[in-house]
Amino acid sequence: MNQQNYQQQTLGILGGGQLGRMVIQSAISYNIDVHILDPDEHAPCKSICQKFVQGNLKDFDTVYAFGKDCDVITIEIEHVNTEALEKLAAEGKKVYPQPDLIRLIQDKRVQKSFYRSKGIPTADFVLTDSKEQVIAHADFLPAVNKLGKEGYDGRGVKILRSKEDLDKAFEAPSLLEKLIPFEQELAVIVARNERGELVAYPPVECAFHPTANLVEFLFAPASISDTIAQKSKEVAIQVIEALGLVGILAVELFVTKDGEVLVNEIAPRPHNSGHHTIEANYTSQFEQHMRAVMNMPLGNPELRTPAAMVNLLGEEGYFGEVLVEGLDEAMAEKGVYVHLYGKKTTKPFRKMGHVTILDEEVNLLKSRALAIKNLIKIKSIEA
Amino acid sequence: MNQQNYQQQTLGILGGGQLGRMVIQSAISYNIDVHILDPDEHAPCKSICQKFVQGNLKDFDTVYAFGKDCDVITIEIEHVNTEALEKLAAEGKKVYPQPDLIRLIQDKRVQKSFYRSKGIPTADFVLTDSKEQVIAHADFLPAVNKLGKEGYDGRGVKILRSKEDLDKAFEAPSLLEKLIPFEQELAVIVARNERGELVAYPPVECAFHPTANLVEFLFAPASISDTIAQKSKEVAIQVIEALGLVGILAVELFVTKDGEVLVNEIAPRPHNSGHHTIEANYTSQFEQHMRAVMNMPLGNPELRTPAAMVNLLGEEGYFGEVLVEGLDEAMAEKGVYVHLYGKKTTKPFRKMGHVTILDEEVNLLKSRALAIKNLIKIKSIEA
Repeated sequence: MNQQNYQQQTLGILGGGQLGRMVIQSAISYNIDVHILDPDEHAPCKSICQKFVQGNLKDFDTVYAFGKDCDVITIEIEHVNTEALEKLAAEGKKVYPQPDLIRLIQDKRVQKSFYRSKGIPTADFVLTDSKEQVIAHADFLPAVNKLGKEGYDGRGVKILRSKEDLDKAFEAPSLLEKLIPFEQELAVIVARNERGELVAYPPVECAFHPTANLVEFLFAPASISDTIAQKSKEVAIQVIEALGLVGILAVELFVTKDGEVLVNEIAPRPHNSGHHTIEANYTSQFEQHMRAVMNMPLGNPELRTPAAMVNLLGEEGYFGEVLVEGLDEAMAEKGVYVHLYGKKTTKPFRKMGHVTILDEEVNLLKSRALAIKNLIKIKSIEA
Repeated sequence: MNQQNYQQQTLGILGGGQLGRMVIQSAISYNIDVHILDPDEHAPCKSICQKFVQGNLKDFDTVYAFGKDCDVITIEIEHVNTEALEKLAAEGKKVYPQPDLIRLIQDKRVQKSFYRSKGIPTADFVLTDSKEQVIAHADFLPAVNKLGKEGYDGRGVKILRSKEDLDKAFEAPSLLEKLIPFEQELAVIVARNERGELVAYPPVECAFHPTANLVEFLFAPASISDTIAQKSKEVAIQVIEALGLVGILAVELFVTKDGEVLVNEIAPRPHNSGHHTIEANYTSQFEQHMRAVMNMPLGNPELRTPAAMVNLLGEEGYFGEVLVEGLDEAMAEKGVYVHLYGKKTTKPFRKMGHVTILDEEVNLLKSRALAIKNLIKIKSIEA
């Protein structure tokens, strides 16, 4: 009989945004004390965690001091000081995902080179250090020019379709990746714990916002063949195993016309492509993340009910204190779950919340998701 | 388009135990700030609410001062100062359930008399003010002698099967109720908001602990005919409508051999008989309570997946800091959801948590629930 007393362990999370917030909602059910480090004094996690430290996630001393007070340390954002995490790990703290893997993923150049070295299918690419070098690879176009570091939610990414676009190229260490004429974008979340247990969620289909480069809709299950579903899971498992990562890993994938499955990007934390799992799957990605990093048994990842997810982004033209339009109508619908992220103020395209829609009738999900998107608007009290 | 801005309203809850804790888990998704009043400095809600006030729930000044700082005030325990709530309501605060109904329900004598006056089916009873009066009604035996006030979780209830038991009768205002040789015990949760919307959850079947007089197992759906299910819902609706209550109401029912449905007791708050709704139903009772008292649209109460619920009570013989035995094995099972209540210390029969088990195979629920009960034991680090 295992008698590990999880509730004696404090979980520290670097980052106190919506991802941490939803982890805390799960952690409450297990009596896990959560400490949060975030630079924002109004961070979404602040009032629901057991200890909140306001501080810079990239500062060695801040991260180190924060971690000393915890038993298990994890992240909800990749842009953190990994040296401090390495020191904590060396001193016996459990730090998951492992600091060296966070560093690998922080730099898209290293990330892509890792895929190549491990034979993980991904779009062809070259590394470039300057705009001049990008221009020298004009034969690579159409391509995507990605900054090595600090990209996030569409920042740090330029699409270079033709030579006219070359002027947009980054004057910094970046990579130039073949633009893949993909048929579909999928995501598979995988989880692995210290004991070596590994589970993969069913693939989901992502639809991106045309200009903001953010996930706008997500559908689970994805409308794909069993072969593609199987291949997607296998590739995601290949990535987490090659990394040896403990925690959860969201693997974004392209499916080409020829049925190839290519790794696009990865995130070693709860991810926008798994928000529906709170209601739609047996175990949510947020609980799974907690389970994985705390070396609890992993939970079942299967889908209970088909679902769509709609991101609630701040409407263009609205700034300041939040007013959610259409909330009443949405809340009255069967199988509609609204999640607001506790952000006091809105701005255009800020991620303010999401809505999950459950429906046994898979073919109704698209129209219901669209209707919700048109119904709920994140505005502000004073426009 | 309704633009009510719920997140501008603060929800105050009298009581900071597990029921409030699970309401907060729901409120987080709607950005609702929750204030808690509880006498226990280690109350389960303390570290996850936006404001915690330590104080006596029965003290007029304490409750009044607490409520002045909130927009909507509700309860998670009935034993509160209703005079202070009435003053708050008179001053324009929204107080739900209504203070006069809390007072009515606080006193089982008044509660029973109300059923009789409204033609709500309930076991026959007489009011008694002393042991002598109970003895004078010896012809009423076998019967249950219930204290008018302050009964809770089996306290304040004596079963008087024969004249030998009469010495156990209460020397206080109480009632003597015919012992019903019921076939089943059911519970139906109903909810009603200010707008007058009303929903009823499907009936669940309760199995009580043989000695502790606490719900030990719960099964949803109940194994009853459609006729009994319909009748149970109708009776529960009859009660909430007769009361005109805003909020949720748990209605405990007896089903007799003849298929009669009788009201046993009611609770105007989230209730042990609805814990499974977190995972098993479209809308949990905790979210529904918040929706009802804040005059949000009510959520759909239907069952998504058949479920059983097991209460996790402190094992006999164990006191002090909690050790949960068998947690790993339970967490590894598909469709098993553990909820611990954040109580630092255990004692025999203390409600420490619950487990919900989902299974599409209804006939597996009983054996799975029993297995979980035998697996998870709430002990203490030092026996």
